[in-house]
Amino acid sequence: MSATAAAAAAETLADLLSARYGAVDPPPPGPDNAVIRTLLRHRSVRSFLPDRPLPPGALETLIAAASSASTSSNLQAWSVVAVEEPERKARLSVLAANQKFIRDAPLFLVWIADLSRLERLGRAWGKEMEGLPYLESFVLALVDAALAAQNAVVAAESLGLGCVYVGAIRNRPAEVAAELRLPPNAMAAFGLAVGWPDPLVRTEIKPRLPQRVVLHRETYGAPAESEDIARYDAALAEFSRRNGLGDSAWTPRVLERIGTLAGLAGRHRLREVLIAMGFGLR
Amino acid sequence: MSATAAAAAAETLADLLSARYGAVDPPPPGPDNAVIRTLLRHRSVRSFLPDRPLPPGALETLIAAASSASTSSNLQAWSVVAVEEPERKARLSVLAANQKFIRDAPLFLVWIADLSRLERLGRAWGKEMEGLPYLESFVLALVDAALAAQNAVVAAESLGLGCVYVGAIRNRPAEVAAELRLPPNAMAAFGLAVGWPDPLVRTEIKPRLPQRVVLHRETYGAPAESEDIARYDAALAEFSRRNGLGDSAWTPRVLERIGTLAGLAGRHRLREVLIAMGFGLR
Repeated sequence: MSATAAAAAAETLADLLSARYGAVDPPPPGPDNAVIRTLLRHRSVRSFLPDRPLPPGALETLIAAASSASTSSNLQAWSVVAVEEPERKARLSVLAANQKFIRDAPLFLVWIADLSRLERLGRAWGKEMEGLPYLESFVLALVDAALAAQNAVVAAESLGLGCVYVGAIRNRPAEVAAELRLPPNAMAAFGLAVGWPDPLVRTEIKPRLPQRVVLHRETYGAPAESEDIARYDAALAEFSRRNGLGDSAWTPRVLERIGTLAGLAGRHRLREVLIAMGFGLR
Repeated sequence: MSATAAAAAAETLADLLSARYGAVDPPPPGPDNAVIRTLLRHRSVRSFLPDRPLPPGALETLIAAASSASTSSNLQAWSVVAVEEPERKARLSVLAANQKFIRDAPLFLVWIADLSRLERLGRAWGKEMEGLPYLESFVLALVDAALAAQNAVVAAESLGLGCVYVGAIRNRPAEVAAELRLPPNAMAAFGLAVGWPDPLVRTEIKPRLPQRVVLHRETYGAPAESEDIARYDAALAEFSRRNGLGDSAWTPRVLERIGTLAGLAGRHRLREVLIAMGFGLR
């Protein structure tokens, strides 16, 4: 048994739940299996071994997992562009907030909310696709892409690979579309860097909001939300300190990220750019 | 070993890949494990045992899996409302195209694209949340909700539970928001019925588009898309016949679903309804 496998075996479900909630009211351990442990163990990886390729067949397996996700009315309104060429990864990295891990990861997947295939189908059959230019169709494509991508992430992590989503690919959607030669009505929704985690870089499960903040019973209501968030702030500050990320809690980060237009890093223009790219969004 | 376990053990990875692609160019078997098999085996379940409850602790485990998914900038812009009361499930079923399985499933999860928590946080700290009223923030919340939900689906299916997403919850967003008492800036993105599959109702893995239709290398391009879709149409028609669903292929269903405004089932009003619900969508 490798050291990693031994460590994984020593982990109890209670440990994983406690880490996931920063020890703030973790639920008692319930059903347990290898899949649930893979899910609970998730951590985003931003340090990859640049020279270690993926296992043979891994990409096709990740995409088969992605294709296995649900899709609204089986419309399958998503695509993915697999980028492995170093020069293209480097250019995409520059477009996506210049994040180094995009260059380091052997594989950069760009997930596309793709209404263009349905548009082409309509054209081939001489049918105007009346439903396409509505916000609903954009929502549907975005959700399809996200469900597919998340299945790929789960598959990747089950193989010991690491991943990180890249929302910054939306900073400059037109330039990204040009780089990937996307047709109109196709948008890079988010990126996903995939590779082998650098074993020298320690990562830890990141605590999330207490369960009762996000889980509502029967109707929406979070009577103790402020107190729960205060406790979460303390847990996240503790996590940050342990991981050399300063002592930042959740609330100040949220206020900075969404409180100011600058936090949107150019994405406040998303609507106008998407319309220029062919989306109706009516 | 139960009959189900024996059947599962007899399945090869090649079988699963072939079923997933309707035998149209399935990729050769690559890496294999229990997680990947759980993902590949997915099928939507619409027939539930109405009287068999979920295992103790299952809901909390699904939500812990959901909370373990990535979230943009750790904003966690999602919530979930767990509906178990029969009367409320029945009312939601009526609002969501009157689908019976919502009443039958012991648990109906409504996943919320939730910007309201960030809005409350801003109010509590006297800070105007400048980034909230933009389409980008809605996109972010929707993707957060979808990643979380998909982790819950994978966890549920690993326990032998069945699930089906319900996009029809977007048919009447304002009425659904009233039923669930959602605050402004919170939208029911999709539902998820969860329960024990009725063992008397046979389900089969549904074929998806050939891998090279959705997977692009380096740049977007699908040179043989028409031919690939024609082969997929044949595979899906065969699947439909085998499963007593007529002999409908993919193309005619797509043309009906997205080709006409009627196929949107009222969702062409989504933008105006969301704005009335407090979303900026700028």
